[in-house]
Amino acid sequence: MAPEPVIPKTMPFEKYRPFLPLPLELPNRRWPSRRIERAPRWCSVDLRDGNQALIDPMDPTRKRRMFETLVRIGLKEIEVGFPAASQPDYDFVRLLIEEDLVPEDVTIQVLVQCRPELIERTYESLVGARRAIVHFYNSTSVLQRRVVFGLDKPGITQIAVDAARLCKKLEKDVLQGTEVRYEYSPESFTGTELDYALEICTAVMDVIEPSAERPIVLNLPATVEMYTPNVYADVIEAFGDAIPNREAVVLSLHPHNDRGTAVAAAELGVMAGADRVEGTLFGNGERTGNVDLVTLALNLFSQGVDPELDLSDIDGLRRVAEYCNRLPVHPRHPYVGDLVYTAFSGSHQDAIKKGMEALPKDYEVWEVPYLPIDPAHVGRTYEAVIRVNSQSGKGGVAYIMKTEHGLDLPRRLQIEFSAAIQHVTEDTGTEITPEEMWGVFEREYLSPHPSIELVRHQTTTEDQQAEVAVTLRVDGEVREARGRGSGPVAAFVHALNSALGTDLEVTDYAEHALQAGSEATAAAYVEARSQDGVRWGVGIDQSILAASYKAVLSALGRLERLAPEG
Amino acid sequence: MAPEPVIPKTMPFEKYRPFLPLPLELPNRRWPSRRIERAPRWCSVDLRDGNQALIDPMDPTRKRRMFETLVRIGLKEIEVGFPAASQPDYDFVRLLIEEDLVPEDVTIQVLVQCRPELIERTYESLVGARRAIVHFYNSTSVLQRRVVFGLDKPGITQIAVDAARLCKKLEKDVLQGTEVRYEYSPESFTGTELDYALEICTAVMDVIEPSAERPIVLNLPATVEMYTPNVYADVIEAFGDAIPNREAVVLSLHPHNDRGTAVAAAELGVMAGADRVEGTLFGNGERTGNVDLVTLALNLFSQGVDPELDLSDIDGLRRVAEYCNRLPVHPRHPYVGDLVYTAFSGSHQDAIKKGMEALPKDYEVWEVPYLPIDPAHVGRTYEAVIRVNSQSGKGGVAYIMKTEHGLDLPRRLQIEFSAAIQHVTEDTGTEITPEEMWGVFEREYLSPHPSIELVRHQTTTEDQQAEVAVTLRVDGEVREARGRGSGPVAAFVHALNSALGTDLEVTDYAEHALQAGSEATAAAYVEARSQDGVRWGVGIDQSILAASYKAVLSALGRLERLAPEG
Repeated sequence: MAPEPVIPKTMPFEKYRPFLPLPLELPNRRWPSRRIERAPRWCSVDLRDGNQALIDPMDPTRKRRMFETLVRIGLKEIEVGFPAASQPDYDFVRLLIEEDLVPEDVTIQVLVQCRPELIERTYESLVGARRAIVHFYNSTSVLQRRVVFGLDKPGITQIAVDAARLCKKLEKDVLQGTEVRYEYSPESFTGTELDYALEICTAVMDVIEPSAERPIVLNLPATVEMYTPNVYADVIEAFGDAIPNREAVVLSLHPHNDRGTAVAAAELGVMAGADRVEGTLFGNGERTGNVDLVTLALNLFSQGVDPELDLSDIDGLRRVAEYCNRLPVHPRHPYVGDLVYTAFSGSHQDAIKKGMEALPKDYEVWEVPYLPIDPAHVGRTYEAVIRVNSQSGKGGVAYIMKTEHGLDLPRRLQIEFSAAIQHVTEDTGTEITPEEMWGVFEREYLSPHPSIELVRHQTTTEDQQAEVAVTLRVDGEVREARGRGSGPVAAFVHALNSALGTDLEVTDYAEHALQAGSEATAAAYVEARSQDGVRWGVGIDQSILAASYKAVLSALGRLERLAPEG
Repeated sequence: MAPEPVIPKTMPFEKYRPFLPLPLELPNRRWPSRRIERAPRWCSVDLRDGNQALIDPMDPTRKRRMFETLVRIGLKEIEVGFPAASQPDYDFVRLLIEEDLVPEDVTIQVLVQCRPELIERTYESLVGARRAIVHFYNSTSVLQRRVVFGLDKPGITQIAVDAARLCKKLEKDVLQGTEVRYEYSPESFTGTELDYALEICTAVMDVIEPSAERPIVLNLPATVEMYTPNVYADVIEAFGDAIPNREAVVLSLHPHNDRGTAVAAAELGVMAGADRVEGTLFGNGERTGNVDLVTLALNLFSQGVDPELDLSDIDGLRRVAEYCNRLPVHPRHPYVGDLVYTAFSGSHQDAIKKGMEALPKDYEVWEVPYLPIDPAHVGRTYEAVIRVNSQSGKGGVAYIMKTEHGLDLPRRLQIEFSAAIQHVTEDTGTEITPEEMWGVFEREYLSPHPSIELVRHQTTTEDQQAEVAVTLRVDGEVREARGRGSGPVAAFVHALNSALGTDLEVTDYAEHALQAGSEATAAAYVEARSQDGVRWGVGIDQSILAASYKAVLSALGRLERLAPEG
């Protein structure tokens, strides 16, 4: 009897409503036909949104390490803290300014709520800065207006306008030597009616009076990701179309990842006209995190667009992030995870191997199956992480044998040897390391024949004819034999058959040097058939001829193991 | 001197080209105006794509645990392996069939490449099954046709057509008692020209001859995610529009996550007309993983759409996935990560607290800031994971004090106490547990006054007037005092002032029971002012009056600590 049909418990989905009851009616929707042709302006919020979301916020050493790393990879706008909310953030801003740690082309940014005492403290924190972005925000969503502030729209707008006015005043009073720019966020934008977001941003602009030369950043955060990324793009496009004085606005995105689509939201948002993206390294940030700037940048890179960040040492960057955040980067995280340049499936491994071989060393355009970018471009390798398990076929095995051990196995030998590997991995249930693979290979192909030893061989070739004279020790007894053939291997097999009474026949043959140069060792591969079947043999020797003869003996020994006992 | 401007190394972006040179010209693009109104058909590939990508593939115990879990949460189509490629997969399929482990309404699916010997072995593996989907595939991308197969389009099409023919034959010869359905994947679809994908799928359909009653699954995998998710939606929509006999086709998606947008690709693909999504629990799978079915389902759930999966015990599901995959789920993974129902930021904590309070217990629609779903609906709690660190303000502190310790601190006391907590967390640089918070609270507010002890008190109230007679021990010396006031607290303060010569004045007062019932303990909060400043005091006692008097003494002691020494 099969188990009963399962009727899973129905979840209480009726307790939820989409925030936007319908998709926007956008007769003029243009973003789906766009492609991103250049990187947006990047702004890191690792030291603010990222830091505030850590179980253990960064200590000063970690903050400085993060800041210097962000600068090194090319970030030009860095939100360094919320100085009015936390003494360590305040101290860090002071450290950056007093020790003059901010390069000339980098602008620090500080976050502050629209509250007068916090704004004042924020301006104090910036005294002496060359340049800064003051990022003020208040929450504008329908829900927060009701349950958190208990205010109507004019009341919420007043909070933002008052804050903008105080900023302008303090700029004159406190920060005369500093080039101040502004960013305003209608926080919880994704829960705010589009027309109200436009209204409050316009009111803020009326106070700040931005210009094309000194634009205001209007940052439209997906504080909580509340809908599919195309809807975010829709509202971004509609906002950009409707905001007055658009050339005085830097339209900025700040996506969170509650629905797992922050990267897509940022990409579609940029297609919809956004100029700037706020995010973090590998997506650290409140709850599910901020959008991952590294993934965004490498997504552009993989499409032939300059990412405008140096991600050529992605593992180094990951170490910094893991050190500073004390949170891991997942093994499957795009571009950086331990497993992302790995292929376990045999057909994937085989295709990668063929793709690598088809690619010229000085290729113009990267094209390898299953590897969207050349791992070398981010300081990784395919080789270093390839793993072979019971799900892998010959592709992975062949690749390891070639890259790790220098052996270029003929195709049918790949298949034969893969079967041996698969038996091992199926028995152990785990992956096999290159060393373990070599152990299997050595036992299977390179162990001496149990009863036959090649003592001496003399080979003469003339035109299309070869003659071999060999001395063998068979079960301890010395035997001499001669053979002729179209080449040395055929002649050797002939000699062997006459000495031993065997019926060996060579069906395929290949050889190659193991290293370049005069001390080259050779590897020879022989596929031989007897009445017991077909088997490959392998020989490795400094002499190419000795390698071939060893390969024949290897095949012979393996064929004999096939023979019925007795 | 500020550090020099940083000119980051330019990455070799010119080595990459977008696969589609331009976005599709889609005059009839409809998906951006759609919304998903019901769940697609889900198909789990945990036991195949997921399993093949593991460092340690699942052993039989793990496979069975995974299968039973998938069935339990409501999966009706489960790809259980690639039986022709791996003996453990073959054995597992046999186990399912021979031990009759597949419920009647669940269909198992097996994957196989378009190779005759593999197809034959696949059919052998299915003998005795009630119902099965045979999923055959070959790679159709421009790149793989060239570097892996060295075949032109007709050659690749022939592979698929031959496989389809062999399937039909084996169905009759080998699987007569089994209800067989077919799935065909033009593997590496995202690297395949749309018209060729249509051509090869049509050729396969011509052999399989699907009908509306017995449709074929055409699965269009983002084997490698190669473009933004809107482009995936475009090609899915265009494919669905152009494929003949559409009603005989189940259009299926199989997104991978190379660009971090698999969830978005699946969502936009479903908006574009797909009927079915293949993915895994929490996104396990080759490289960056398959699309995460749990996130997709809960994204629908959060928009009021029945997810058609039971995810009410998400932590249990995660434990199964971590056990079977031997890979962790990240702390920021949507809906399930350790940190995703946490808010560290003070303003977030405050808003959540207010949102929770505004929500009726039997609410109709969930609406709480920063929490896209009610954590209880997936078996989680906000309480269990709230953490307080130096970035947290009063909201988090107040919440912990209420939920963990039962104390409903008045608002200004929240602010005062939060400052104490912030000093602690800034000093230690880490979060504070509820126990540690209680330690700080106890030391700060509940320790006995160092020199004054309340020995006895007698309170008489009449109309609007209260009179208190108290016996105090002050520095070891007993004093009697009386006081009058509009209520007991005012009277007690009066008595205290007359006995001690202090100038205490009560400016705020609150009290509540700590538990319901007759043995209720009371908590009292008193805000008092003296010449030294304003401080809160707290008292806890079985008597509500004693609690109030203790709170006054607590405030007095704290004010005295503010006084200048000497």
